[in-house]
Amino acid sequence: MANYQKMNVSGTERVELHDKIGLTGAEISVNVLPAGACVPFVHAHKQNEEVYIILEGRGRMVLDGESVELSANDYLRVSPAAKRQIFAAADSAIKYICIQTKAGSLENYTATDGIM
Amino acid sequence: MANYQKMNVSGTERVELHDKIGLTGAEISVNVLPAGACVPFVHAHKQNEEVYIILEGRGRMVLDGESVELSANDYLRVSPAAKRQIFAAADSAIKYICIQTKAGSLENYTATDGIM
Repeated sequence: MANYQKMNVSGTERVELHDKIGLTGAEISVNVLPAGACVPFVHAHKQNEEVYIILEGRGRMVLDGESVELSANDYLRVSPAAKRQIFAAADSAIKYICIQTKAGSLENYTATDGIM
Repeated sequence: MANYQKMNVSGTERVELHDKIGLTGAEISVNVLPAGACVPFVHAHKQNEEVYIILEGRGRMVLDGESVELSANDYLRVSPAAKRQIFAAADSAIKYICIQTKAGSLENYTATDGIM
Protein backbone atom coordinates (compact mmCIF):
# COMPACT_ATOMS: atom_id res chain seq x y z
CA MET A 1 0.00 0.00 0.00
CA ALA A 2 1.20 3.54 -0.71
CA ASN A 3 2.71 5.36 2.25
CA TYR A 4 -0.06 7.94 2.01
CA GLN A 5 -3.42 8.54 0.37
CA LYS A 6 -5.38 11.81 0.18
CA MET A 7 -8.96 12.79 -0.69
CA ASN A 8 -10.77 16.11 -0.68
CA VAL A 9 -14.29 15.90 0.74
CA SER A 10 -16.82 18.60 -0.05
CA GLY A 11 -20.53 18.56 -0.82
CA THR A 12 -23.32 17.23 1.35
CA GLU A 13 -23.35 13.52 0.45
CA ARG A 14 -22.12 11.17 3.20
CA VAL A 15 -18.57 10.03 2.44
CA GLU A 16 -17.02 6.92 4.02
CA LEU A 17 -13.24 7.09 3.83
CA HIS A 18 -12.07 3.60 4.91
CA ASP A 19 -11.79 2.17 1.41
CA LYS A 20 -11.16 5.49 -0.34
CA ILE A 21 -7.92 6.32 1.49
CA GLY A 22 -6.93 2.84 2.72
CA LEU A 23 -7.60 3.17 6.44
CA THR A 24 -6.71 0.22 8.68
CA GLY A 25 -7.14 1.67 12.19
CA ALA A 26 -10.38 3.61 11.79
CA GLU A 27 -13.43 4.26 9.69
CA ILE A 28 -14.03 7.97 9.18
CA SER A 29 -17.19 9.39 7.65
CA VAL A 30 -18.16 12.96 6.80
CA ASN A 31 -21.85 13.73 7.17
CA VAL A 32 -24.30 16.61 6.72
CA LEU A 33 -27.83 16.70 8.11
CA PRO A 34 -30.05 19.55 6.89
CA ALA A 35 -31.97 21.67 9.39
CA GLY A 36 -34.69 19.61 11.08
CA ALA A 37 -33.29 16.26 9.95
CA CYS A 38 -31.90 13.36 11.96
CA VAL A 39 -30.28 9.99 11.43
CA PRO A 40 -33.51 7.95 11.38
CA PHE A 41 -32.50 5.25 13.87
CA VAL A 42 -30.91 4.70 17.27
CA HIS A 43 -27.72 2.62 17.20
CA ALA A 44 -24.91 1.31 19.38
CA HIS A 45 -21.72 -0.63 18.58
CA LYS A 46 -20.26 -4.03 19.41
CA GLN A 47 -16.57 -3.03 19.64
CA ASN A 48 -16.14 0.49 18.37
CA GLU A 49 -15.72 3.75 20.22
CA GLU A 50 -16.95 6.70 18.17
CA VAL A 51 -15.77 10.30 18.15
CA TYR A 52 -18.04 12.94 16.62
CA ILE A 53 -16.36 16.16 15.53
CA ILE A 54 -18.78 18.99 14.73
CA LEU A 55 -17.45 21.01 11.79
CA GLU A 56 -20.34 23.42 11.21
CA GLY A 57 -23.80 24.19 12.51
CA ARG A 58 -25.74 22.96 15.51
CA GLY A 59 -27.76 20.01 16.71
CA ARG A 60 -27.94 17.48 19.50
CA MET A 61 -27.33 13.84 20.25
CA VAL A 62 -29.60 11.72 22.36
CA LEU A 63 -27.33 9.37 24.34
CA ASP A 64 -29.01 6.70 26.46
CA GLY A 65 -32.02 8.99 26.65
CA GLU A 66 -30.05 12.13 27.61
CA SER A 67 -29.92 15.07 25.17
CA VAL A 68 -26.45 16.60 24.58
CA GLU A 69 -26.19 19.89 22.69
CA LEU A 70 -23.70 20.02 19.80
CA SER A 71 -22.12 22.96 18.00
CA ALA A 72 -19.06 23.70 15.85
CA ASN A 73 -15.71 22.63 17.34
CA ASP A 74 -17.26 20.10 19.73
CA TYR A 75 -15.40 16.78 20.09
CA LEU A 76 -17.62 14.05 21.55
CA ARG A 77 -16.48 10.55 22.54
CA VAL A 78 -19.21 7.87 22.69
CA SER A 79 -18.61 4.44 24.27
CA PRO A 80 -19.57 1.38 22.19
CA ALA A 81 -22.65 0.40 24.22
CA ALA A 82 -24.26 3.85 24.38
CA LYS A 83 -27.50 4.11 22.40
CA ARG A 84 -27.17 7.21 20.22
CA GLN A 85 -29.12 9.26 17.69
CA ILE A 86 -27.98 12.56 16.18
CA PHE A 87 -30.29 15.42 15.16
CA ALA A 88 -29.69 18.72 13.34
CA ALA A 89 -31.24 21.76 15.03
CA ALA A 90 -34.65 22.87 13.72
CA ASP A 91 -33.05 26.03 12.29
CA SER A 92 -29.51 24.83 11.44
CA ALA A 93 -27.86 22.12 9.43
CA ILE A 94 -25.04 20.21 11.12
CA LYS A 95 -21.86 18.95 9.43
CA TYR A 96 -19.81 16.42 11.33
CA ILE A 97 -17.07 13.82 11.14
CA CYS A 98 -17.65 10.41 12.76
CA ILE A 99 -14.57 8.34 13.63
CA GLN A 100 -14.90 4.66 14.58
CA THR A 101 -11.98 2.89 16.29
CA LYS A 102 -11.83 -0.36 18.22
CA ALA A 103 -12.24 0.54 21.90
CA GLY A 104 -9.04 -0.18 23.86
CA SER A 105 -6.92 -0.70 20.74
CA LEU A 106 -4.52 2.22 21.14
CA GLU A 107 -1.34 1.02 22.85
CA ASN A 108 1.09 3.93 22.53
CA TYR A 109 0.85 7.39 21.03
CA THR A 110 2.79 10.61 20.41
CA ALA A 111 5.98 10.45 22.53
CA THR A 112 5.80 6.67 23.10
CA ASP A 113 4.96 5.78 19.49
CA GLY A 114 6.79 8.49 17.56
CA ILE A 115 10.24 8.02 16.01
CA MET A 116 12.33 11.14 15.55
CA MET B 1 -16.14 5.63 32.57
CA ALA B 2 -19.03 7.80 31.44
CA ASN B 3 -20.75 6.69 28.25
CA TYR B 4 -19.73 9.94 26.61
CA GLN B 5 -17.44 12.92 27.11
CA LYS B 6 -17.45 16.21 25.20
CA MET B 7 -15.04 19.12 24.82
CA ASN B 8 -15.16 22.29 22.73
CA VAL B 9 -11.84 23.15 21.09
CA SER B 10 -11.17 26.67 19.88
CA GLY B 11 -8.13 28.93 19.93
CA THR B 12 -4.73 28.26 18.44
CA GLU B 13 -2.97 26.25 21.16
CA ARG B 14 -2.41 22.57 20.34
CA VAL B 15 -4.99 20.42 22.15
CA GLU B 16 -4.48 16.68 22.77
CA LEU B 17 -7.81 15.00 23.43
CA HIS B 18 -6.88 11.48 24.60
CA ASP B 19 -6.97 12.24 28.32
CA LYS B 20 -9.45 15.10 28.09
CA ILE B 21 -12.33 13.06 26.64
CA GLY B 22 -11.24 9.55 27.65
CA LEU B 23 -10.22 8.12 24.29
CA THR B 24 -9.14 4.45 24.16
CA GLY B 25 -8.92 3.76 20.42
CA ALA B 26 -7.21 6.93 19.19
CA GLU B 27 -5.29 10.02 20.08
CA ILE B 28 -6.72 13.11 18.41
CA SER B 29 -4.99 16.48 18.42
CA VAL B 30 -6.09 19.84 17.04
CA ASN B 31 -3.28 22.03 15.72
CA VAL B 32 -2.72 25.44 14.17
CA LEU B 33 0.47 26.54 12.40
CA PRO B 34 0.72 30.24 11.53
CA ALA B 35 1.71 31.29 8.00
CA GLY B 36 5.31 30.35 7.28
CA ALA B 37 5.63 27.98 10.25
CA CYS B 38 6.23 24.24 10.36
CA VAL B 39 6.45 21.42 12.86
CA PRO B 40 10.21 21.68 13.48
CA PHE B 41 11.10 18.01 13.03
CA VAL B 42 10.56 15.02 10.77
CA HIS B 43 8.87 12.04 12.44
CA ALA B 44 7.51 8.58 11.80
CA HIS B 45 5.64 6.08 14.01
CA LYS B 46 6.24 2.60 15.39
CA GLN B 47 2.64 1.32 15.27
CA ASN B 48 0.31 4.16 14.49
CA GLU B 49 -1.39 5.17 11.27
CA GLU B 50 -2.16 8.88 11.18
CA VAL B 51 -4.96 10.75 9.46
CA TYR B 52 -4.60 14.49 8.93
CA ILE B 53 -7.82 16.43 8.38
CA ILE B 54 -7.31 19.98 7.14
CA LEU B 55 -9.93 22.27 8.70
CA GLU B 56 -8.78 25.67 7.43
CA GLY B 57 -6.00 27.23 5.38
CA ARG B 58 -3.27 25.75 3.25
CA GLY B 59 0.12 24.12 3.51
CA ARG B 60 1.99 20.98 2.54
CA MET B 61 3.42 17.83 3.97
CA VAL B 62 6.76 16.37 2.99
CA LEU B 63 6.32 12.59 2.96
CA ASP B 64 9.42 10.46 2.38
CA GLY B 65 10.86 13.45 0.51
CA GLU B 66 7.77 14.06 -1.65
CA SER B 67 5.80 17.31 -1.19
CA VAL B 68 1.99 16.92 -0.96
CA GLU B 69 -0.19 20.04 -1.12
CA LEU B 70 -2.82 20.43 1.59
CA SER B 71 -5.94 22.60 1.76
CA ALA B 72 -9.24 22.71 3.64
CA ASN B 73 -11.34 19.52 3.50
CA ASP B 74 -8.37 17.29 2.64
CA TYR B 75 -8.23 13.92 4.42
CA LEU B 76 -4.73 12.38 4.33
CA ARG B 77 -3.77 8.91 5.58
CA VAL B 78 -0.09 8.37 6.44
CA SER B 79 1.36 4.90 7.08
CA PRO B 80 3.39 4.43 10.29
CA ALA B 81 6.82 4.21 8.63
CA ALA B 82 6.49 7.27 6.40
CA LYS B 83 8.79 10.14 7.38
CA ARG B 84 6.62 13.26 7.57
CA GLN B 85 6.83 16.98 8.25
CA ILE B 86 3.96 19.47 7.91
CA PHE B 87 4.33 23.10 6.85
CA ALA B 88 1.89 26.03 6.69
CA ALA B 89 1.94 27.97 3.41
CA ALA B 90 4.07 31.12 3.35
CA ASP B 91 0.89 33.23 3.10
CA SER B 92 -1.66 31.10 5.00
CA ALA B 93 -2.02 29.50 8.40
CA ILE B 94 -3.18 25.88 8.47
CA LYS B 95 -5.53 24.36 11.05
CA TYR B 96 -5.69 20.58 11.17
CA ILE B 97 -6.75 17.55 13.16
CA CYS B 98 -4.29 14.66 13.56
CA ILE B 99 -5.73 11.24 14.45
CA GLN B 100 -3.44 8.41 15.58
CA THR B 101 -4.77 4.84 15.59
CA LYS B 102 -2.95 1.51 15.76
CA ALA B 103 -2.47 0.34 12.16
CA GLY B 104 -4.51 -2.80 11.44
CA SER B 105 -6.55 -2.54 14.66
CA LEU B 106 -10.00 -1.98 13.12
CA GLU B 107 -11.82 -5.31 12.87
CA ASN B 108 -15.39 -4.38 11.96
CA TYR B 109 -17.18 -1.10 11.31
CA THR B 110 -20.52 0.43 10.41
CA ALA B 111 -22.82 -2.40 9.25
CA THR B 112 -20.69 -5.19 10.77
CA ASP B 113 -20.12 -3.45 14.11
CA GLY B 114 -23.34 -1.48 14.54
CA ILE B 115 -26.29 -2.70 16.63
CA MET B 116 -29.70 -1.34 15.68
